[in-house]
Amino acid sequence: MEVLKVSSRSVPNSVAGAICGVIRKGNSVEIQAIGAGATNQAVKAVAVARGFLEPEGIELICFPAFGQVTLNDEERTAMIITCEKR
Amino acid sequence: MEVLKVSSRSVPNSVAGAICGVIRKGNSVEIQAIGAGATNQAVKAVAVARGFLEPEGIELICFPAFGQVTLNDEERTAMIITCEKR
Repeated sequence: MEVLKVSSRSVPNSVAGAICGVIRKGNSVEIQAIGAGATNQAVKAVAVARGFLEPEGIELICFPAFGQVTLNDEERTAMIITCEKR
Repeated sequence: MEVLKVSSRSVPNSVAGAICGVIRKGNSVEIQAIGAGATNQAVKAVAVARGFLEPEGIELICFPAFGQVTLNDEERTAMIITCEKR
């Protein structure tokens, strides 16, 4: 499982490219986002990645969950969005 | 396909309950969210709904896409998160 950390300043198209790279290798990817802005960029990235992968016959699905991640030595609650090929 | 409109003031647990109601009936649900705050609440709601449905042996999956919705007579870009039983 590869991990991508997304912030509110992440560019959805770039994150989508990274998601596609992992999925095309046949792996799953876990997107970590802390806060509303980051979660929004993460969801946009998944939507863009779905569009990139669709013409290749790959359907991307995802499932969100809450998780704990460490940021600057602090424990924070993050949204963890796992993406995989259907 | 049932539609749930989520705003930044929506309570994730309540939205999750509504998602579960639709899924238990065997239907799919489309969550519409405009803006980062609303999208964040929508993703939280899906994460909570997954937790509600898991003990029932139901795995919830989702796929986000961009869509156009009309709000106050204005055309707006929304995140449309479709949820269904795996």
